[in-house]
Amino acid sequence: MITLSSDFQSPYPAAMKGVICQWTETRLVDVAHDLPRQDVRTSAFWLREMLPYFPPAVHLAVIDPGVGTDRAAIVVRAGEHALVGPDNGVLVPAARRLGDGAIEVFQIETREGSVEGTDRTAWPPRLASSTFHGRDVFAPAAARVHEIGVDDVETDEGLHAIDSYESLAFPDPTISEGGATGTILAVDDFGNAITNVPGEYVADRFGGELSVDGESVPLRESYAAVDPGQRLVTVGSHGNVELAVNQGWGSDAFDVSSEDAVRIQCNDTRQ
Amino acid sequence: MITLSSDFQSPYPAAMKGVICQWTETRLVDVAHDLPRQDVRTSAFWLREMLPYFPPAVHLAVIDPGVGTDRAAIVVRAGEHALVGPDNGVLVPAARRLGDGAIEVFQIETREGSVEGTDRTAWPPRLASSTFHGRDVFAPAAARVHEIGVDDVETDEGLHAIDSYESLAFPDPTISEGGATGTILAVDDFGNAITNVPGEYVADRFGGELSVDGESVPLRESYAAVDPGQRLVTVGSHGNVELAVNQGWGSDAFDVSSEDAVRIQCNDTRQ
Amino acid sequence: MITLSSDFQSPYPAAMKGVICQWTETRLVDVAHDLPRQDVRTSAFWLREMLPYFPPAVHLAVIDPGVGTDRAAIVVRAGEHALVGPDNGVLVPAARRLGDGAIEVFQIETREGSVEGTDRTAWPPRLASSTFHGRDVFAPAAARVHEIGVDDVETDEGLHAIDSYESLAFPDPTISEGGATGTILAVDDFGNAITNVPGEYVADRFGGELSVDGESVPLRESYAAVDPGQRLVTVGSHGNVELAVNQGWGSDAFDVSSEDAVRIQCNDTRQ
Repeated sequence: MITLSSDFQSPYPAAMKGVICQWTETRLVDVAHDLPRQDVRTSAFWLREMLPYFPPAVHLAVIDPGVGTDRAAIVVRAGEHALVGPDNGVLVPAARRLGDGAIEVFQIETREGSVEGTDRTAWPPRLASSTFHGRDVFAPAAARVHEIGVDDVETDEGLHAIDSYESLAFPDPTISEGGATGTILAVDDFGNAITNVPGEYVADRFGGELSVDGESVPLRESYAAVDPGQRLVTVGSHGNVELAVNQGWGSDAFDVSSEDAVRIQCNDTRQ
Repeated sequence: MITLSSDFQSPYPAAMKGVICQWTETRLVDVAHDLPRQDVRTSAFWLREMLPYFPPAVHLAVIDPGVGTDRAAIVVRAGEHALVGPDNGVLVPAARRLGDGAIEVFQIETREGSVEGTDRTAWPPRLASSTFHGRDVFAPAAARVHEIGVDDVETDEGLHAIDSYESLAFPDPTISEGGATGTILAVDDFGNAITNVPGEYVADRFGGELSVDGESVPLRESYAAVDPGQRLVTVGSHGNVELAVNQGWGSDAFDVSSEDAVRIQCNDTRQ
Repeated sequence: MITLSSDFQSPYPAAMKGVICQWTETRLVDVAHDLPRQDVRTSAFWLREMLPYFPPAVHLAVIDPGVGTDRAAIVVRAGEHALVGPDNGVLVPAARRLGDGAIEVFQIETREGSVEGTDRTAWPPRLASSTFHGRDVFAPAAARVHEIGVDDVETDEGLHAIDSYESLAFPDPTISEGGATGTILAVDDFGNAITNVPGEYVADRFGGELSVDGESVPLRESYAAVDPGQRLVTVGSHGNVELAVNQGWGSDAFDVSSEDAVRIQCNDTRQ
């Protein structure tokens, strides 16, 4: 199985699918092609949250603002999974989670020179363009890794192990007796603002109130536990504290966006 | 085959697909993941209109504003099809159409407690979150029903037949000699306002004029039978009377939206 | 393999998929369902740019503002590929590229009369609606062509060869010593304005400046070779000259849209 993720929207993902279909009949599953445009950090968050639900697979993920520069093209092996994309950090958080912290990184060799026609089964891949490595480099690499198998990546003449690569990590919250200071990692398509504060921090207080940036907000287990349009704090499906509005837009109601700081206090600490 | 429908937009459908891929290699087909957000009624309309075109399948459909409340999680058996989703009515109109009116409803048992890691092949499913039953309950249930077969749903220890469930029905139009009073059921992505008035009501009058809320409008068999930008009434692909604009937005031009009443008269009844 | 393209957005593509799944278990791959709405010309461009990356396949492509009029429904054979859609030119540029210029066109016979229920496996297809031939005519035809094989299209009782069909071609640029006068063929989802000027025209000048409609703009091999927000000219993945902004919207910054003329001069020709 090969999964596909990108910020390409439409129709460029089709070119990647076409190339992969030239190599293999394996199952293709779209994860998302509307990841935040050229936003490596937030896309890395979503890959980390989505890819672990899949069985062992090759995951093609292209959020690549540096396409055409000298950033490397890489394959990351993580447990029984492989991730294929640019060396800009976007693959790393997902890979660490899939590999229980242990990852191996391989650089994809590329060759200069244009490609005749639209056949893209040459290996190592040729740099047919400086603007669409998703089609010209990463899609062939994903298909190639699928073909040879994740365990045998090091045997391939077009892939060589490297020690140095771009890392990317999300901040940890600061938690003390007085409260937690966290960061908004992402806002989802329901408007929920997802923090980095672990749900355990609030888990024994459901049904009560929390203070969010100084304002009292109900802590509930589900969105529908407050009236439509009302704010709440909950623990989202990611396991983190989330700022939400039932059937509304949490990020607006709390006036927060990605990378903003947020201060969460359990109200009994005010005593 | 398993079809997937939701109002999740992106990227949450990927988590459901990942879970299903842990269970089965069957074909996955996306119906839509941008059904009207938390709008059970309109989503039920679209499921009713789209799912019957599929061969026998398991249809996962999650429009679930009550996630985390005590609304049940259900499997509906309808002919050779099964539908899996929340007990809020969203599955019912499609199921009645697929089952020629006859449906059977089974409640999905769930178990408390978190799920270790991201493996979701436990059955009955565990309530890993209160906010994403699409991933934690419905996706495993769809895969499970696919695995055991629609005919054997009652043999499963995690499913038990129930008599009571949330129903949902669309209004019937009032048709008399003086005209038809109908309701807008949905506005589609082309801006066509789809009524509940059956096409038969106007079928012998193509080429003439109708009165819509008192204004005369041409009745034509196809959009392109009037000039671009012009209003028309037609019989849409659903078989119902539709208010449209050729290459334009019917709902704007007729100033109607979902659930609005509309009065349609054949002009010769004015005599 | 059957690929699907349309301007239907959502959820109507699902009805086409359902119908095809009634016929065949072959792999379905979505190319795009948000091609420019009822814009035959720009959609034809995208089909030409995307479909050639696929291995031999049946390509269903429905951009059909004339649905329900007397425009024909056609199958175009091009090399080992077949394209299925309306006879309005939308298939032609892609077919010419797939067939190295040589294409054969077959008209799809249709029968009058409604279809009982939602079974759509009758052949030749019946005109169940005048508004959704994607579902009623083209999806069955794509499945049928896949079933009988591209080589045997002429043996089918529902398809007959025709000599006359709607053509569609993109303008050629005018290139002289003084510069190139081209046309914007499309603006992609990154805001890049894609011209019809071949990349070869500028290929030996990377790193220098060009004049675009009289203003000097850097010519670079990749978007990231200029600062974010800065304009550049590059050769895009289509092989054509492209007007772009690094991490921004080229069509806005250059104030151009589809079908606009653009004048590109190599600066040393000003001497």
